[in-house]
Amino acid sequence: MAENRAILYAYWLSSCSWRVRAALHFKGIPFEERSIDIVKTNQQKTEQFRAINPAQKVPALVIDNVTLVESMAIVQYLEDTHPEPALTPKTPVLRARMRELCEVVVSGIQPLQNIGLRSHFDTTEQYTKFTKYWTDRGLKTLEDLLQKSAGKYCVGDQITLADLCLVPQLYNAVTRHALDISKYPTVSKLYESLLKENVFKETHPESVKSKM
Amino acid sequence: MAENRAILYAYWLSSCSWRVRAALHFKGIPFEERSIDIVKTNQQKTEQFRAINPAQKVPALVIDNVTLVESMAIVQYLEDTHPEPALTPKTPVLRARMRELCEVVVSGIQPLQNIGLRSHFDTTEQYTKFTKYWTDRGLKTLEDLLQKSAGKYCVGDQITLADLCLVPQLYNAVTRHALDISKYPTVSKLYESLLKENVFKETHPESVKSKM
Repeated sequence: MAENRAILYAYWLSSCSWRVRAALHFKGIPFEERSIDIVKTNQQKTEQFRAINPAQKVPALVIDNVTLVESMAIVQYLEDTHPEPALTPKTPVLRARMRELCEVVVSGIQPLQNIGLRSHFDTTEQYTKFTKYWTDRGLKTLEDLLQKSAGKYCVGDQITLADLCLVPQLYNAVTRHALDISKYPTVSKLYESLLKENVFKETHPESVKSKM
Repeated sequence: MAENRAILYAYWLSSCSWRVRAALHFKGIPFEERSIDIVKTNQQKTEQFRAINPAQKVPALVIDNVTLVESMAIVQYLEDTHPEPALTPKTPVLRARMRELCEVVVSGIQPLQNIGLRSHFDTTEQYTKFTKYWTDRGLKTLEDLLQKSAGKYCVGDQITLADLCLVPQLYNAVTRHALDISKYPTVSKLYESLLKENVFKETHPESVKSKM
């Protein structure tokens, strides 16, 4: 029934929204996506949306009669409540390897290239220089860390939360920041393979946009 | 035996180091702290430390014959391998509430006030304005979110990972950024109570510094 579907408040180009959209798709959880335009009309700043997320950011997910915010809190809630198919490895060390990679993206790259930072710089050039520096530095760290964990995907041969963080961030790096990721061979190879997986094809921003 | 103790590479003033130091203390895991001076002598940039953490950041933890990096990956590894005393609530919704708070600090505040950003701004004034804006915005979000979860601590009456994120970030906000946190009554009250808890008294930067 439609009433029982989860509601994802998201923006098609938002990397944090993509993490949650991919987790919902991977686990086969029925959901309806409602677009919050954070770029042109600033819908995240309305009082209506503030009631959903006081931080006035996407994504937010209404599920099981609760409203959850912060993408990493949401995807881990989905993992807790819908453990299969799993998005986390079985051993503590592999889970730590996965979380190291997630954190490099979540705290090391994403906040420092966010579109919300633009107005804090005098010129677009300053903003671009800043975002490119931190994205590039994060990608270098990912390349190093992946030597310890990568298989077919970021951690061995299982799609995990690390892949859900990596793909959207690389899409940003390549399309929005026009970064050359070929100097990071492991990162590049994983990105190319992962984009062919259904979970990323079906939840890709371009796919979401085409249905809007 | 000394050889079996975990080794924490950390800096006394680093908020991310404090998260891990507090988790180790809370769980009663024996550890030795080795100081990496990230401010005066840039020890994190040496080749020796790069072998420990390719991201050249603190903290890093050597435990169970593996080297782990990224504070949130480390504290969750400790929670996985030493589940008692617990630092996470028992229900999925409360765990999500905890993680929402963690994420506001970990991705919403900490990266945007990090000392490493200073060199990216022309003047100290620009850097200060930027860091204060994002810290203040994050604290406002925390104040809002805490209305749903706070009890004696951030999530009910149990010390959790959210408290381990909150206290070090507030210490930075108050001491380094000289922010007035009294306009956030829930945040302020929690900070004051938490600082009286042994886990934060024993692992406080001033306590670490006094032993150096």
